[in-house]
Amino acid sequence: MITTDILIIGAGPTGLFTVFEAGLLKLKCHLIDALPQQGGQCSELYPKKPIYDIPAYPEILAGDLTHKLMEQCKQFEPGFTLGERAETIEKQEDGSFIVTTNKGTKHQAPVVAIAGGLGSFEPRKPLIQNIADFEDKGVEYMIKEPELYRDKKVVIAGGGDSALDWSIFLSDIASEVTLIHRRNEFRGHLDSVEKVQELKNAGKINLVTPAEVIGIAGEDRVEAVVVKQSQDVDKEFTLECDHFIPLFGLSPKLGPIANWGLEIEKNAIKVNNALDYQTNIPGIYAIGDVNTYPGKLKLILCGFHEATLMCQSAYQIINPGKRYVLKYTTVAGVDGFDGTRKEAPKAVVKAFD
Amino acid sequence: MITTDILIIGAGPTGLFTVFEAGLLKLKCHLIDALPQQGGQCSELYPKKPIYDIPAYPEILAGDLTHKLMEQCKQFEPGFTLGERAETIEKQEDGSFIVTTNKGTKHQAPVVAIAGGLGSFEPRKPLIQNIADFEDKGVEYMIKEPELYRDKKVVIAGGGDSALDWSIFLSDIASEVTLIHRRNEFRGHLDSVEKVQELKNAGKINLVTPAEVIGIAGEDRVEAVVVKQSQDVDKEFTLECDHFIPLFGLSPKLGPIANWGLEIEKNAIKVNNALDYQTNIPGIYAIGDVNTYPGKLKLILCGFHEATLMCQSAYQIINPGKRYVLKYTTVAGVDGFDGTRKEAPKAVVKAFD
Ligand SMILES: Cc1cc2nc3c(=O)[nH]c(=O)nc-3n(C[C@H](O)[C@H](O)[C@H](O)COP(=O)(O)OP(=O)(O)OC[C@H]3O[C@@H](n4cnc5c(N)ncnc54)[C@H](O)[C@@H]3O)c2cc1C
Ligand SMILES: Cc1cc2nc3c(=O)[nH]c(=O)nc-3n(C[C@H](O)[C@H](O)[C@H](O)COP(=O)(O)OP(=O)(O)OC[C@H]3O[C@@H](n4cnc5c(N)ncnc54)[C@H](O)[C@@H]3O)c2cc1C
Repeated sequence: MITTDILIIGAGPTGLFTVFEAGLLKLKCHLIDALPQQGGQCSELYPKKPIYDIPAYPEILAGDLTHKLMEQCKQFEPGFTLGERAETIEKQEDGSFIVTTNKGTKHQAPVVAIAGGLGSFEPRKPLIQNIADFEDKGVEYMIKEPELYRDKKVVIAGGGDSALDWSIFLSDIASEVTLIHRRNEFRGHLDSVEKVQELKNAGKINLVTPAEVIGIAGEDRVEAVVVKQSQDVDKEFTLECDHFIPLFGLSPKLGPIANWGLEIEKNAIKVNNALDYQTNIPGIYAIGDVNTYPGKLKLILCGFHEATLMCQSAYQIINPGKRYVLKYTTVAGVDGFDGTRKEAPKAVVKAFD
Repeated sequence: MITTDILIIGAGPTGLFTVFEAGLLKLKCHLIDALPQQGGQCSELYPKKPIYDIPAYPEILAGDLTHKLMEQCKQFEPGFTLGERAETIEKQEDGSFIVTTNKGTKHQAPVVAIAGGLGSFEPRKPLIQNIADFEDKGVEYMIKEPELYRDKKVVIAGGGDSALDWSIFLSDIASEVTLIHRRNEFRGHLDSVEKVQELKNAGKINLVTPAEVIGIAGEDRVEAVVVKQSQDVDKEFTLECDHFIPLFGLSPKLGPIANWGLEIEKNAIKVNNALDYQTNIPGIYAIGDVNTYPGKLKLILCGFHEATLMCQSAYQIINPGKRYVLKYTTVAGVDGFDGTRKEAPKAVVKAFD
């Protein structure tokens, strides 16, 4: 059982900043995310695109925003359960909650902060009859651990940035990378597209287009995929491989959280925005894109504010009766759980000679 | 008469970010500030100190935060009335407001956003009997236009960062700089203290300590100050100069705004935080440190959120009946009023050779 002060569901920008604000109040956080990496929409949907409305950043790439938030909260040593979906919640006699993931990992905390954005990112799966039989046996919809592919034969399907970028990345690790797409045209960032062309010319990525994977063969694990190529006349062939990775995008689904007894409106969780972003269940908060209230804007900067106010309220639940007096970080410094301390250089008092 | 869409009182971080958010909605802003420069508390009280809780900035100097906010809103060409205090407000028949400063400058707008922080920064004045007679006639409590001091004899009084930093700055411009302080010890950033020592050694700053200016002499303008030095026995002497600049700090006073008919609580303006941060007077909003509501935190990041929600509400007042659909800056880009456009590089669509 993983225990913590605030259990955060969702490691997007809102969840990550919550770790920092909670840390200032000496509260520890653990985060669960269905994605294998932190950053939520920013890292999954548009990591290389610039955002212009993060306050005091005239421009920042969504991927860099994620890195900065990770760096900022590092001092507070957040725990992560990645690649798992929070599935069920149970209230305990002592008022705490136990949240269990689809993989059975259990987490206990007195406060739960749902920072689930538009929902848990779930892969769009290709329509191949027996694909479910091979999930985690050679078929992966997201890449969690690139080392898994070392010296293996890999088939990637897809025509967007993920397919391009992972083909590039794995071309260095896998023994063979084949990229299959149902059109001739790929759509991605200029640098990715150029790099794939380069690797194709160098024989490090095999391209098969326009084509689709229509079947999977193997005993216990993936041993080959059946490819239907549709250039002039259709032709089918079998391609030996150890892994088949269809990267057709991940789309967010509110999913299991919708059944936790929370008041839901327009696919989002209603909260008390006049006070602390708590839901109808005391001890459960909802912050960032996942919540709704009159005037709500689904913007990153709003999640930051909501997280900050929420932590103050959570402090009261975790430390009943204690009064917290806000101290400016500039004045009080920041003491990490890792023993590091940030503080402003002291003023010098000096009489001149 | 200066006219604009949103008249912002206070050019601190909250006011500056309002310009950006309003700009995204195609609303123009004009800002009034009692200080000669932008940045509010950040630039007046701790420009060289680090802040650690600006989201996605593990550390940023308060002065740099101000510069980043200025850079971010530049595209939207804000107007500024600096060094003047907003004094009175009058509601017009057409629903708009006219705000007049202590210098008589008039501004008209359908929406007023008070981002006045802890109040209008007002100088602490030394107790010298006839000092009022010389205000703006050689006596200045803040430095608005350094060029005023070119080739002039300047006396600065004070023992903190402002006194040190302006002595350093003016030592290059003025013909003579004398720094007077009632103690031998100064208190400031290490680099400022070191630089003053250097300039003193080079004969570019005269130091007189422990000493006080106790009188001012002159016909129409400052011609000299009377200095009382208290080393062993007290001695008084007269020092010829063109300017006397007492820099004893500025302290914020809610001041005239307290009499605008707004609901005040704990020296702050009550707002509707459940919706749009509007005050009890429709069309007047209060955002940032200047407002109060249950759970309010006087933090910079909260001002950013409040400004953003407020602009959406202001849009409805200025464009009645029009519906605004939120667009992500990443997706829609940012079109400045100055004709510049920021936008994400387009994805490339390519078939590989
Ligand atoms: C193309 C695009 C451009 C954008 N541009 C801007 C912009 O310019 N400015 C701006 O402010 N915003 C922009 N946004 C919106 C911005 O990305 C979101 O507001 C922000 O990501 C919300 O952060 P969050 O942390 O609340 O949620 P998210 O980023 O959505 O993260 C939520 C995380 O929770 C996880 N999760 C949810 N449910 C579960 C569960 N049951 N179990 C485990 N994990 C779960 C999800 O997998 C996800 O990783 C843009 C969005 C897109 C798609
Ligand atoms: C030493 C110190 C350290 C701090 N550290 C942190 C920190 O680490 N993190 C954090 O989030 N916050 C910190 N703060 C607080 C932070 O500076 C404020 O929250 C922030 O400045 C508020 O911004 P604002 O724009 O709302 O108001 P302000 O910065 O106060 O700006 C308001 C402006 O309005 C002007 N004004 C007011 N009334 C009038 C009028 N009638 N006419 C003309 N002008 C007027 C004032 O002159 C002022 O320039 C710190 C503050 C101090 C003093």
